[in-house]
Amino acid sequence: MRMVDLIEKKRDGKTLSKEEIDFIIEGYTANSIPDYQMSALLMAIFYQDMTDEEISHLTLAMANSGDIIDLSSIDGIKVDKHSTGGVGDTTTLVLAPLVASVGVPVAKMSGRGLGFTGGTLDKFESIPGFKIELSDQEFIDIVNKSKVAVIGQSGNLAPADKKLYALRDVTATVDSIPLIASSIMSKKIAAGADAIVLDVTTGDGAFMKDIEDAKRLAKTMVRIGKLAGRQTMAVISDMSEPLGEAIGNSLEIVEAIDTLKGNGPADLTEMCYVLGSQMVVLAGKADALDDARAMLEEALHSGKALEKFREMVKDQGGDPAVIDQTDKILTAKYEIELPAKASGHVTKLVANEIGIAAMLLGAGRKTKDDDIDHAVGIKLHKKIGDEVTEGESLLTIYANSNEIDEVKDLLYQNISIGDRPEEPILIHDVITE
Amino acid sequence: MRMVDLIEKKRDGKTLSKEEIDFIIEGYTANSIPDYQMSALLMAIFYQDMTDEEISHLTLAMANSGDIIDLSSIDGIKVDKHSTGGVGDTTTLVLAPLVASVGVPVAKMSGRGLGFTGGTLDKFESIPGFKIELSDQEFIDIVNKSKVAVIGQSGNLAPADKKLYALRDVTATVDSIPLIASSIMSKKIAAGADAIVLDVTTGDGAFMKDIEDAKRLAKTMVRIGKLAGRQTMAVISDMSEPLGEAIGNSLEIVEAIDTLKGNGPADLTEMCYVLGSQMVVLAGKADALDDARAMLEEALHSGKALEKFREMVKDQGGDPAVIDQTDKILTAKYEIELPAKASGHVTKLVANEIGIAAMLLGAGRKTKDDDIDHAVGIKLHKKIGDEVTEGESLLTIYANSNEIDEVKDLLYQNISIGDRPEEPILIHDVITE
Repeated sequence: MRMVDLIEKKRDGKTLSKEEIDFIIEGYTANSIPDYQMSALLMAIFYQDMTDEEISHLTLAMANSGDIIDLSSIDGIKVDKHSTGGVGDTTTLVLAPLVASVGVPVAKMSGRGLGFTGGTLDKFESIPGFKIELSDQEFIDIVNKSKVAVIGQSGNLAPADKKLYALRDVTATVDSIPLIASSIMSKKIAAGADAIVLDVTTGDGAFMKDIEDAKRLAKTMVRIGKLAGRQTMAVISDMSEPLGEAIGNSLEIVEAIDTLKGNGPADLTEMCYVLGSQMVVLAGKADALDDARAMLEEALHSGKALEKFREMVKDQGGDPAVIDQTDKILTAKYEIELPAKASGHVTKLVANEIGIAAMLLGAGRKTKDDDIDHAVGIKLHKKIGDEVTEGESLLTIYANSNEIDEVKDLLYQNISIGDRPEEPILIHDVITE
Repeated sequence: MRMVDLIEKKRDGKTLSKEEIDFIIEGYTANSIPDYQMSALLMAIFYQDMTDEEISHLTLAMANSGDIIDLSSIDGIKVDKHSTGGVGDTTTLVLAPLVASVGVPVAKMSGRGLGFTGGTLDKFESIPGFKIELSDQEFIDIVNKSKVAVIGQSGNLAPADKKLYALRDVTATVDSIPLIASSIMSKKIAAGADAIVLDVTTGDGAFMKDIEDAKRLAKTMVRIGKLAGRQTMAVISDMSEPLGEAIGNSLEIVEAIDTLKGNGPADLTEMCYVLGSQMVVLAGKADALDDARAMLEEALHSGKALEKFREMVKDQGGDPAVIDQTDKILTAKYEIELPAKASGHVTKLVANEIGIAAMLLGAGRKTKDDDIDHAVGIKLHKKIGDEVTEGESLLTIYANSNEIDEVKDLLYQNISIGDRPEEPILIHDVITE
């Protein structure tokens, strides 16, 4: 088999076989297929697309390129959740204890990653004492005891995907549905999940700007998950404005705690119910999404979910006092209000630009070696559709420097005030097959 | 400027500017743009095509990536001729002395190249004593005195094209009209031609299997030649069957001499008149193609062209006795006939497969380090449409081994005999603008 013939085959719109895809991924991982052939193939895939079978073969080949985590010693059906990314996305912090409190095992492996704020790990590390370095056995024991634990991603997970992603990034082949779908699903499968819930975001702050593209991506992932023997569901959610009100690591932890107390923002709470219901159904704890939702609402209202969060914090060495006195972790030196320059309704809150503002304050990483400032960030007081009067605060900036003119300018440029807009839609679609 | 943005621009079907194309080719030549980005761009070009302006910028950027040969000390308009390749293509051997004999300066630089038979250099070297290593000054002096000389390609001509061609070969991006056109034209421009005549071959034995593709390639090259300030014309010629009757280095020299004596195969002679007329017009020696053709016919019939060939051979140290006793260079140990297995008309002579048969005998190179056997090759006695009786010889194989069953089998598989076929067309089109 010669790589050049396989490039030509895909270039001409033909379908690659399992053997051919295995040859490509094995060769690329072993460096016997060079980057310059792989990038030509990636561009051919960009134009010619792939069938579900091809994407499924590609996903499994990438998952098999490194370690496959074995979670079989954890009781029950392990459901993983993945978001294609957004701004102020606090759902994982709420979902982990929420679904664990109704008996779904949550063995969460997370990376630090790049982005507007830190990854799930960075957010948990905003809690004093919380440690994410556990041995595999400690991790498994905690999940079996308390149903929930989070650790840093270990091992050599899907190295082919890592190598491919770096190549796509510099060859303008990122925006390809078969390549995005296989990248996400290969890591989830290698991480040992039995079932997968996907939050595919769409809108300005998301990777998929267009709803139809987001739906296609979601449907593709659900189908290839099933072909790979993993039950998969997806939600198409809106990321035109940030989810919830907090953007920043400590601020998001506080928001998660507020939500678990029943006082969270409506959109974040709804999102957690929608995604959580899918997780509960896939874990076999309820037959229908409605039943699952009722269980989760009960767990939240009764305080069971909050107690699960307290147990999780204690299990991982964190200080549970944070839960009762959330102000303890909001340690930024300056809290600066951003007054509205006009009266009216908020019509736009451009999610990704507000994310960049938070990153400029120090809440996120530009390169993987950057340090994160857990204390800084942005707390929105107004969201799309809210009424505001001139001079009223739109948001509070939590900063450790008071030279933030650049951040303020960026925020003003990306918040519009005008006539009452249409009600924003949070969930565009739920995809179960 | 970032390469990834330029890949994305072309990927999305936009037009690259001169500055952008210069950045790409300069960066690629200097190794600051890696192969993996270039191959992604090549695949994007494969799908999105390029405008004439883009191809013209690309051509000039590649020509400027190395030396530009200065032929200004040669009197007159220097016209170069290029064929996209064929089997038994003896035209250059005839054209050089033919057009020189009517006053067109022919300063021919040739490579050895790979192929069914050797390059023009290898063919001339079949003449005892003929040397192709001349100093630049000797070369120029000979052309100014006798109007014709041939030397080996020297200098660092279009290194960007060389590097790109090697990359295209392993990334399934060879079959792209803008890339083929810019590759050919960049080398011709760097080689110092004032005007260019192109023979774009089509059919089984050619690179362009399809006539419409060949026309598009020819039109593209003619337009970009003009945009680059080089008058350019093209002929679309047929390469379904080999041109002329000889395939092999010495055999082709003999065929060229026969043609210059007025006894050449009809198709080869016609091809030389058509291409030669374009060269004469572009050199400003005639106003119209008809006038040019009359001049060439006169030169051939009067013996002037043959005398020019004799002068050329003497100038370059070759033994002119060959011209009168062509058998002297046909030194192959075995001459083996291939008898027809049936009676009828020849309906097929698959050019590229017959070329491969010649290469298997030793007439061509498989890799650039292979030696060439000048004496071996194939002489066709029948061409498409010719009548043949069972047992009559279809062709003579000139070999230095008598173990040639593989060659015979290959030839039989690619020569069909049946009912009288349609008359083959030699010239499909002449493209002057």
